[in-house]
Order: sequence, then structure tokens, then C-alpha cells
Amino acid sequence: MKKLLFTPGPLSTSRTVKEAMLEDMGSRDHAFVNAVKETRNELLKLAHVSQAEGYECVIVQGSGTFGVESVISSVVGKKDVLLILVNGAYGERIVKMASIHQLNHLVLRFDEDEIVTPGATADFLKDHPEITQVACIHSETTTGLFNPITEIGAVCKKHQKVFIVDAMSSFGGVSMDMKEMSIDFLVSSSNKCIEGVPGFAFAICKKTELEKAKGQARSLSLDLYEQWRGLETNGQFRFTPPTLSLMAFHQALKELEEEGGIEAREKRYQANKKNLDDGMAALGFKQYLRPEIQGHIITSFLYPTDRNFNFEEFYQKLNSRGFIIYPGKLSKADAFRIGNIGQIFPEDVINLVKAVKEVLEEEKIVEIA
Amino acid sequence: MKKLLFTPGPLSTSRTVKEAMLEDMGSRDHAFVNAVKETRNELLKLAHVSQAEGYECVIVQGSGTFGVESVISSVVGKKDVLLILVNGAYGERIVKMASIHQLNHLVLRFDEDEIVTPGATADFLKDHPEITQVACIHSETTTGLFNPITEIGAVCKKHQKVFIVDAMSSFGGVSMDMKEMSIDFLVSSSNKCIEGVPGFAFAICKKTELEKAKGQARSLSLDLYEQWRGLETNGQFRFTPPTLSLMAFHQALKELEEEGGIEAREKRYQANKKNLDDGMAALGFKQYLRPEIQGHIITSFLYPTDRNFNFEEFYQKLNSRGFIIYPGKLSKADAFRIGNIGQIFPEDVINLVKAVKEVLEEEKIVEIA
Repeated sequence: MKKLLFTPGPLSTSRTVKEAMLEDMGSRDHAFVNAVKETRNELLKLAHVSQAEGYECVIVQGSGTFGVESVISSVVGKKDVLLILVNGAYGERIVKMASIHQLNHLVLRFDEDEIVTPGATADFLKDHPEITQVACIHSETTTGLFNPITEIGAVCKKHQKVFIVDAMSSFGGVSMDMKEMSIDFLVSSSNKCIEGVPGFAFAICKKTELEKAKGQARSLSLDLYEQWRGLETNGQFRFTPPTLSLMAFHQALKELEEEGGIEAREKRYQANKKNLDDGMAALGFKQYLRPEIQGHIITSFLYPTDRNFNFEEFYQKLNSRGFIIYPGKLSKADAFRIGNIGQIFPEDVINLVKAVKEVLEEEKIVEIA
Repeated sequence: MKKLLFTPGPLSTSRTVKEAMLEDMGSRDHAFVNAVKETRNELLKLAHVSQAEGYECVIVQGSGTFGVESVISSVVGKKDVLLILVNGAYGERIVKMASIHQLNHLVLRFDEDEIVTPGATADFLKDHPEITQVACIHSETTTGLFNPITEIGAVCKKHQKVFIVDAMSSFGGVSMDMKEMSIDFLVSSSNKCIEGVPGFAFAICKKTELEKAKGQARSLSLDLYEQWRGLETNGQFRFTPPTLSLMAFHQALKELEEEGGIEAREKRYQANKKNLDDGMAALGFKQYLRPEIQGHIITSFLYPTDRNFNFEEFYQKLNSRGFIIYPGKLSKADAFRIGNIGQIFPEDVINLVKAVKEVLEEEKIVEIA
């Protein structure tokens, strides 16, 4: 049975994206090198920048976290001070990286159910003029909220700080202009809103800042600068790339364009989200976040209060109906998550909600909130 | 046109291996978690060890180099001293890792066209009792030689050193018994002789030594111990795995068994190698290495001496006939490389040699050596 993934990724992808992996590719062969070049250029375009404007795209093997660690551990120099803005598990992950690499860093924490505020960020930057870089998560997958990146970027620009954005689960599903948002490094991965399969991360980098990372990396594999130099020198990767994941992504980029670009995809995801909100509300489910700060990527729903509710059973029964949902990751409340990105459409969400209703009835779960 | 890859990897893989990537998989879903569990167990079996005997398999996202760096940067503690045995580019790569991570390390270098000798290794270990770990490449892809791992392992065992082997391009294509070879950490990757697609590396580890790596890693993503703990805790990866590469590999392991296991595959590769040796010799090509130290994975052929020879043209003309070969990487001689691993069979090698003959004629290359 074909299963639909209502998760934050790996996602459901189109048949044609997966079929792009049916041909073996030599990692140093021209056909592959050309596909990588096109991919890097297309990613710049999607971020509304270009090489001519001084931006570069670097692809890093591994998961999204590998990409974030590559940026953090290459860009922050020995004498630099990184400010990490945290309101969820993915912000905390950057704190962990900074600790492991013994980077000078400061952390400004917000509650998990609150956004990072530009005001508090500005105050903190005024109090700590030693800060050189600021890192923030755009779509915090922990809860599903969107941090106000444009406003935080404006604060960074005003205070002349390098701005690093983990746009893992948002890029491709939310219109983002790197210049308008004052972003110097934007990181995302192959298996998110571009709707490719997992295998690599990518960073879109302001070239003048990327060049400063030369010789600063704390590892060989995650050296952002050398990875870029390798790709620029001969179009090849320093180390074996996930060739077929890259071919799938190359196809996914074509399909994104056919859909009408990021703008059209964002509308589809918003339509998915509306059906999810309406359907789950009709069943009585309460969301963890207040709607003003909730993004249109993934939603945290509080567990039903009914004592008959058991998440593992709920998950399995939805799974056996072809719907894969996601466990929660909140520190303060029991919740599960439903993503609405990937090759899923408004009618798929309606079918998911129907399946949720069936399972509630079967499990005799009456009290929802 | 279907192209055959005569490279050290990514390789030609079977249609069915690639078709295993046609279904989306949730990275935390049971079907996927089970496939990962089976894969890890099967890899232990292929190395002739088991969990019951105190061995563990850890999968690391990224290329083979990511796997080697994960082991090197996690296993060598602050007060440890690593000896790196070097006779090619992949040994030098470990030296680079040791430098970047500021590990205490010593390097014993051999000529590129000579094997690492157990005798010199033993002498060096006697002179440097402070050494705690020894790292060596099994099949040096730079040239194609096989280092005598069993004998070097015996030396390490006698001197009670931890033995780390980069068996990237040999594991799966050469029978290896980790216990007999006294190997504590063996690293290989998904796109080599198991005949999967690129996306991850794996390390087979002696558990008592792996446990010592706790808290020692120099990065978050490449923390070998925590990666293992993550997989052991709930069968899931800490960070998004290359789900579809793993499903392809799971299928590749089945097909390896169907072929008759590593022993049968080794025979096929040896038959490929014999056809390559015979065919290229008949055309007049000279190999870089003397036959006693040459492995059956990849071969370095010296450039024809004829002034009409141009590697780029030679490569392109073979490519247009459906055969992808590999450039050389020697420091002392001009050579190209031909691999004979992956889904290629003795008759494919005969066809490759025929194509080489055609191209030589077309390019009027007469003097070969």
C-alpha cells in the first residue's frame, strides 16, 4: 500500500522524482557535473540571489544537521562570538554544536510556544557588542512556529552581524528573498520543501562571508569553504556525493518550476494546512500554538484528554490506513505532529482527517480537549 | 544509453537495487527501522562477527570519508597517539583528518608503489610505545594495491594497539574476517563492493573500544559513539538518514547473498580482473604496480607513450561507447584507472577492452609502452 508521509521529512515525493534515480551516474562524469551545476544555480535563483550578486551555493553530503554544523563550525572564527536564538530543539542543537566545537557563544532563549522577538534580539545585541554572528531557526519543527526572520534580519543588519538561518523545513515552501531578509547563510536540505529525497544539505552563502571561513573549519568532511572550492574548481565533490539523491533533486527542481515555483507551492501547503486546521478542529483537537505564530509546514496537536487515547495505537491504526504521522517533541506538553508538506494535496489532508475520525471512533476516544 | 561504470564507485548497480528506492519511507517508521536493523546485522555477518561476540555496526550519513573521519575523530582520545600507515592518497587523507582534529599522531610512509610492510610497522611500534591506535588502508584506490592487513593486524595485536582499517573499496569484494585480521574498526561505504548506491558509510566496531569513544568526538554529526547509542536506543538515526539509499543497500545485501556471498563475488571480481589484465596486456598496456601487490578492485594503467594519446579524448570516446573509466591519482606517473567492481561481469570487461582497442585505432595511438 502506498503510504503518505505527513511528517517534517523525509516526505512523500513524486514518482518521477524517485524514477530519476534509476540510472547509475559516475560522480566525476560530465552528465552528473552538469546536473550539480544546474542545481546550485537553481537554488540561488529560488533564494532570489545569483553568483553575479555575490552569493554561492554549497552542497554538503549527509543530513540537514550536517549542513548546519558545516556552516556553524566553518563560519564562526576563533575570536568570533556567536549568538544563538533558541525557542525549540533545533535551536538547542546549534547550541550543542557550538559547545562541542568550543565556539565563543551566547544563547538567548525564548519559551517553546513563543517566537524569537526582534526587540529582545536588538536589546541583547546592544548589551553584547562582541557578538559577530547570529543564528536562528526559521520554521521550528519542534512546534511548527515561524520565527520573524525578516525582522530579525533587519536587526542583524542594523547591528552589522552576520545572520545564519536554519531554513531547513521552510525553504521551498515559503517565499524567501535572502537580500530582503538580510540572510548571509541559509541552510536547508534535499528532503524538505523542494520535495527531493534525503542525502544532502545545502547552504546558500554570501560570498564575502564564505571566503572568511577559509582555514577555520573544525573538520575535514564539514569544511564549508573547501567544499565550495572543490565544487568551483572542477564542478566535482571532494568526496563521493549521493549521486542519485542529487539526480532526484535535479528532477524535483524541475517539478517545482512546473508547479509554478515557490509561490504556487506555498499556496498548496497553505491549502493543505487550512484543511488540516478545519478538519482537526471539527473533531475537537486543540493545537499547541496560538494561530498567529503557527507556520504552514507542520502542526503540533495536543493529545486527546480521553483516557482511551494511546499514541502508539493511534499511530499504528493511521499507518495501516496509509497515513504516517509524526510523534511530538515538546518539552512541556504531550502532542503529536502532522506535517503538510511534500507531494500531498488538499484532498489527501481531507482523507487523513477522515482516517483520524475513524480511528477515534474505533478506539472509543470521545473527549478530545 | 546505459553506461557501465569502471570506477572505484559510485558503481554500476542492479536495476532491482535502484528500484528499491521507488517507495517513500518515513525515517522513524517501523518498516524502515526494521530494514536498518537487518542491514546492521547483515554487515556484522559479512565481517564474520556478531553482537554476541562483542561487535557493533554503526551507520554514518555522508560519504566514506565521513565514516573514516567519524571513527578517527571519535576513537582517538586526547592522550592517545595514532600511527597512520601511508602509501597513497587515502592514507594521506587520514593524516589530514588527524591534523585538523589536532590528534597526537605519527606517520609511517611507504612509496606509493610499495605495500605497507608488517616488519617496518613492528619496528616503528617498538620505537614508539606511546602509540595507542594504528590506521591503515586495505585497498589503496590511489594505485589499486592491497596492503597485507592480516599481517599488519597480527603486529598490532602483538603490540596491543587498536587497529583501524579503511576497507572502503575492498569490503564485500574480498573475504575479511575481522577477528582473524585483528581489526577493531573497519570502515566501508554503501557504494562500493556491496553494490548499493551512495549516501552513507558504515563502521564495524569492537564494542569495548567503541564504548571508550564516549564523549571524545570532535563534532556532533560525526560522533560515532552517539550515533551508535541513537541506533541502539530506538533503532532510529539521530539525524535524517538517506532513507532510500538505505533501502537500496538492503536490497543489495539480499542480492549479494543470492550471488553466493562475498566468496562468489570475489571470484567474479577476480574473473573481471583477469579479463582486464589479459585484454589490456594484449593491447600493450603496462600496469603501474607489480602483480604481486596489485589487488582485484581497481588497476592503474600507465598512459600510452604515443604522442597522439590525450586522456580527455580517450575518456570521452569510451564514454560515448557506454564505458566510464577513471582518471589517475598517482604522484609519480601519468596513469588512468579502471575498476572492475559493481554490476559488471567478465563479458563486460571484454567489451570494454574491445572499445579501448577501437579508440586506440581511431586516435592513431600506436606506441603503448
